[in-house]
Amino acid sequence: MADTAVRSRKPSSDKRTPAGGATHAPNSAAEASDPRIDIAQVTDLLLGTWADTRRVAREMTKNPDLWRDDSLGMDAHRERVLGQLHLLVEQGGVHRAFPKAYGGEENNGSNIAGFEELVTADPSLQIKAGVQWGLFGSAVLQLGTKEHHDKWLPGIMSLEIPGAFAMTETGHGSDVAAIGTTATYDPATEEFVIQTPFRGAWKDYLGNAALHGIAATVFAQLITNGVNHGVHCFYVPLRDANGDFLPGIGGEDDGLKGGLNGIDNGRLHFDGVRVPRTNLLNKYGDVAADGTYSSDISSPGRRFFTMLGTLVQGRVSLDGSAMWASALGLNIAITYATQRRQFDSGAGTDEVVLMDYGRHQRRLFPRLATTYAGLFAHDEFLQKFDAVFSGKSDTDADREDLETLAAALKPLSTWHALDTLQESREACGGNGFLFENRLVGLRADLDIFATFEGDNNVLLQLVGKRLLTDYGRQFKDKDARALAAFAVGQTAGKFFHGAGLRQLGQAVGDLGSTARSVERGLRADQQHELLAGRVQQMVADIAGRLRSAAKLPRDEAAALFNANQSELIEAARAHGELLQWEAFTDALARITDEGSRQVLTWLRDLFGLSMIEKHLAWYLINGRLSAQRGGAVSSYIDRLCVRLRPHSLDLVEAFGFAPEHVRAPIATGAEKARQDEARAYYAALEASGSAPVPEKKGKTPTRA
Amino acid sequence: MADTAVRSRKPSSDKRTPAGGATHAPNSAAEASDPRIDIAQVTDLLLGTWADTRRVAREMTKNPDLWRDDSLGMDAHRERVLGQLHLLVEQGGVHRAFPKAYGGEENNGSNIAGFEELVTADPSLQIKAGVQWGLFGSAVLQLGTKEHHDKWLPGIMSLEIPGAFAMTETGHGSDVAAIGTTATYDPATEEFVIQTPFRGAWKDYLGNAALHGIAATVFAQLITNGVNHGVHCFYVPLRDANGDFLPGIGGEDDGLKGGLNGIDNGRLHFDGVRVPRTNLLNKYGDVAADGTYSSDISSPGRRFFTMLGTLVQGRVSLDGSAMWASALGLNIAITYATQRRQFDSGAGTDEVVLMDYGRHQRRLFPRLATTYAGLFAHDEFLQKFDAVFSGKSDTDADREDLETLAAALKPLSTWHALDTLQESREACGGNGFLFENRLVGLRADLDIFATFEGDNNVLLQLVGKRLLTDYGRQFKDKDARALAAFAVGQTAGKFFHGAGLRQLGQAVGDLGSTARSVERGLRADQQHELLAGRVQQMVADIAGRLRSAAKLPRDEAAALFNANQSELIEAARAHGELLQWEAFTDALARITDEGSRQVLTWLRDLFGLSMIEKHLAWYLINGRLSAQRGGAVSSYIDRLCVRLRPHSLDLVEAFGFAPEHVRAPIATGAEKARQDEARAYYAALEASGSAPVPEKKGKTPTRA
Repeated sequence: MADTAVRSRKPSSDKRTPAGGATHAPNSAAEASDPRIDIAQVTDLLLGTWADTRRVAREMTKNPDLWRDDSLGMDAHRERVLGQLHLLVEQGGVHRAFPKAYGGEENNGSNIAGFEELVTADPSLQIKAGVQWGLFGSAVLQLGTKEHHDKWLPGIMSLEIPGAFAMTETGHGSDVAAIGTTATYDPATEEFVIQTPFRGAWKDYLGNAALHGIAATVFAQLITNGVNHGVHCFYVPLRDANGDFLPGIGGEDDGLKGGLNGIDNGRLHFDGVRVPRTNLLNKYGDVAADGTYSSDISSPGRRFFTMLGTLVQGRVSLDGSAMWASALGLNIAITYATQRRQFDSGAGTDEVVLMDYGRHQRRLFPRLATTYAGLFAHDEFLQKFDAVFSGKSDTDADREDLETLAAALKPLSTWHALDTLQESREACGGNGFLFENRLVGLRADLDIFATFEGDNNVLLQLVGKRLLTDYGRQFKDKDARALAAFAVGQTAGKFFHGAGLRQLGQAVGDLGSTARSVERGLRADQQHELLAGRVQQMVADIAGRLRSAAKLPRDEAAALFNANQSELIEAARAHGELLQWEAFTDALARITDEGSRQVLTWLRDLFGLSMIEKHLAWYLINGRLSAQRGGAVSSYIDRLCVRLRPHSLDLVEAFGFAPEHVRAPIATGAEKARQDEARAYYAALEASGSAPVPEKKGKTPTRA
Repeated sequence: MADTAVRSRKPSSDKRTPAGGATHAPNSAAEASDPRIDIAQVTDLLLGTWADTRRVAREMTKNPDLWRDDSLGMDAHRERVLGQLHLLVEQGGVHRAFPKAYGGEENNGSNIAGFEELVTADPSLQIKAGVQWGLFGSAVLQLGTKEHHDKWLPGIMSLEIPGAFAMTETGHGSDVAAIGTTATYDPATEEFVIQTPFRGAWKDYLGNAALHGIAATVFAQLITNGVNHGVHCFYVPLRDANGDFLPGIGGEDDGLKGGLNGIDNGRLHFDGVRVPRTNLLNKYGDVAADGTYSSDISSPGRRFFTMLGTLVQGRVSLDGSAMWASALGLNIAITYATQRRQFDSGAGTDEVVLMDYGRHQRRLFPRLATTYAGLFAHDEFLQKFDAVFSGKSDTDADREDLETLAAALKPLSTWHALDTLQESREACGGNGFLFENRLVGLRADLDIFATFEGDNNVLLQLVGKRLLTDYGRQFKDKDARALAAFAVGQTAGKFFHGAGLRQLGQAVGDLGSTARSVERGLRADQQHELLAGRVQQMVADIAGRLRSAAKLPRDEAAALFNANQSELIEAARAHGELLQWEAFTDALARITDEGSRQVLTWLRDLFGLSMIEKHLAWYLINGRLSAQRGGAVSSYIDRLCVRLRPHSLDLVEAFGFAPEHVRAPIATGAEKARQDEARAYYAALEASGSAPVPEKKGKTPTRA
């Protein structure tokens, strides 16, 4: 089978060498006489459900006033970004999620789509806008009620009230439930008293806290009548008209960070700061004048997760932004790689274009495939988010699924962005290290994506626990022995899909041409079987190892869980990869253009096979692939890379970026012009007959 | 076997849970009643052959005047670093490699060791020093002769002549042989005319070029009497006393970079710039007044590699610097992880110290093991370098081995540093993103290490070719059929070690206690067999696939090689990993303290098993490990992590850094103080009887 893929190719007119050689590889689909993607159609597909909003946002970000100015130091960068936020307000770029009554559009999906597109302008601008309208404003909107909306939303939307979102503390990041700040109700004055009890409870890493915020939504333990009702959110004024802290409030500047230095992150602490009772954002829990607490959600745990769940959009938007940033990085690196030449191939001809090297293809194409998969998965994620927040489909189960989806996809995409931007930077050599070529700046700014809005490892662990819970639900009426027996028997053959977003089979709407897939070595349904089966078995295996936990003392049970923590996180990752694969496959079914479907099917196969290659040891150990088939996976990937080579420029063009979004000098035609000039120089020199001849071996006199 | 490791432990008095639980894991060797390392002895071992120099350098870098000042913008940072270079001169920190006649010490190993230690002060300072004395000065020293030394070395050493090393061009990075700049000899005036023929031949990314360099060592194609004798190096004055470019010279500033912004990197171009004939650094090739070229090395190829080989020290020093930077990152992340608490374990007790989480151990301990392996490998590498450059052992074969060693180790260590610093930064969450905690700054500054002094992929490909060549040499007298037959038959049983640095068996001086290793699951000799066998078989397999290349047309042969490029690079990586493992094992043999040897044997096992786990699919496909044994590798690693947990602080303390080197606020006791304060607050609150009680489920009134 290994050679079939090559032999079955129709003969092309160009001088392609058998194994996709270094010297004559076609640079375009036309040269390869291949089916070619319809770039416009693929762009539509990638822009997804809110393509119109994305196009509007991309027009807006063509404005240089919104771009990152790399020449600025931290202080000047912060001021520039504050000014840019006002520009966003003027241009109507950031109000789409707010109620129509206040001038918004009540369009949550569109809002996130437009927000994501800001990443190409300046991630600092984007994230500071996210702090103002997506976190601070959203807290007032989602956790507050009409009185709060009337009082504060207009100022928040207009940026008259720049605000901080004061949730994270120095001592508590992803574990929000355990924050130390308290808000104790004083019925005598009908006020809450906000208190920071120790240094670890300082609010930390808050955008707008160091300089610009004049108010904050502060998360604190609500205490009334001697009872702690858990974390609630309070609207707290921070600074007076002169920009000085109000009495009882103090803070520090977080100073220089690894990126996002256009944002004034800082710390806040509160000493007996009093706010009116009605500053409690009371949608999910309220305190009456006499101090009586009430809530429509009787379980404190569920209330907590409901309140936090309203803030899931941060994770949604990071997922999309990370994937679009990856797309931008690959656009730059692949464009450069099709122009830059380095080293003679050994064939005695021209220097070779980087993109023709087997290694270079291996470095960039699987990441390109993952970016496509991630963008398709993101659009489904965004649809789910929109359905919940618009109320179209907003049950408890929907919200739970949305949380799980966010916790599965955000880690994968944000890590992918860091990995892809780094590989892209290295693939551009010294040029990649220059700030003007965007890659290092984007990577630095996106670094924090891996740990904010929920640490990636913590989020994946949540997904893993959900997978375990769903798994356990299947055995509600059986005793532990039955579960154990089941788990032991789980080696293959059954499908299980934890988060319940799809039913098996639905996902695989279009498997592409079976004949073509066969020559790839692993058909789409086989890829799905392998990816889905892995999630199922990993969860079953872990459940089997944990089955005794319920009978153990709590510390031993905790230790047993801890011993399985790393693998549980890997199971969650496998689940996320499966979701991406399914989304890619669903997207294929929506393509009408034959050439586009063909090329994108290769790209989907590359994604699927790359995931299988990454976890190949697992497939071999668990008998899902024989050593022989396992050994062939890497060659299939090599072949797919060769096949995708002529389409690589089309595939990055399909991201739909304009030069104003890319802006990297090396991704213009500059490198091609340099290479052409050099080759013309040597050709002219050769033609002139005056070219120096190379030294002949053995003809050089030895020095005395 | 899986349970033996646990059962065979002697009972300890602490309440450790069976699988190394989250709640009662001992924080120190004492708590664990384990053998403990002798920190001072391990520090000696890690500091290696030139420990004395390292200690002197570390004393010097305690001076805050040498530290990176994060508050400075690019321009001010450049000026600060220039000033720091003068300070290095004053303190005698950078002249160790120069001839005694000029005030140096002629101690090459010591020079590199001292240089590496600058990385903790400011990598910009370090690399700018490397440009001045390690590249520019070294070119004059290594490629020039006495006249050049007399004329320029004193000014170079004193920094009276800041200089650039003008090798790389915009269009040619790692392919130095193909640079476009020409130096054409004019016998009429006895001058060389330096010319930049096209934009791609501009010299680029040169430290000291944008601002401070008043001269440069310029690499150009030497042309005389119509013959191109290949790349040679010329001493070329750049700027006049006012800092303006001399006639015919132009340039540009490279501007802001992803890191190392204390260095003024820039571009240079030359239009008919004339330098005296004697400005050719003529140690390996000369031009007589009449234009006759002569050289002691008759082969132009060998001459080129000899000249370039004198500059190998850049790679040597990056290897060591990258490993010490990794050590610093791990010191910070592991110290923090032993103090910071997050989340209840589920055992209903205190919040858990990060280092007790299984996942956290998995993230940091294998990287700690790799850092130890890399530091030990580096010391052997440095010894080899010193032996060659001191003339103690300086044959052609020695130089070739040194080049191969450099090309194998520099990629592994520089990638390891980026990976480790990133994981360390993520492991510290938002705190890791603050510049004050060092991790983001170090990572940004070291980013370029992966592509300068030879792109990592290009270097590994060189190693791969060397491995193939050595492999081929074994079959000199046999025909291709025999080679093929041999290659096919190579599945196991024979050892092959490409670069010829060691003989099999020598390497494995101390295998530790067999009994203890058995309980680890894979004894040291088994680890070695697996690691070495993989290199051998990968090379044999690739050789087998390439065996037809010699009979193919050149373009097809090139294509065939290209199709194997990626795997050849992987073989080279495997070779580098083997060298690291062997160096670690050799180091164990030098330990006299029993506790240290025990703990470091665990750490070596963790390194070996981590490499085997990383490539587990290969071992399974090639029948080197059964599925059952393969499946056990990960649990062995988990067990080693648990076992190493109490020693983690000792192991990072053994790097020997003082607070002045670490400087990260989170790696002081600050986090522990915060945590203690928080716990004391809650304890006091509890004791006071006035602590708010948690809300009871079902007792909360619903709002009307």
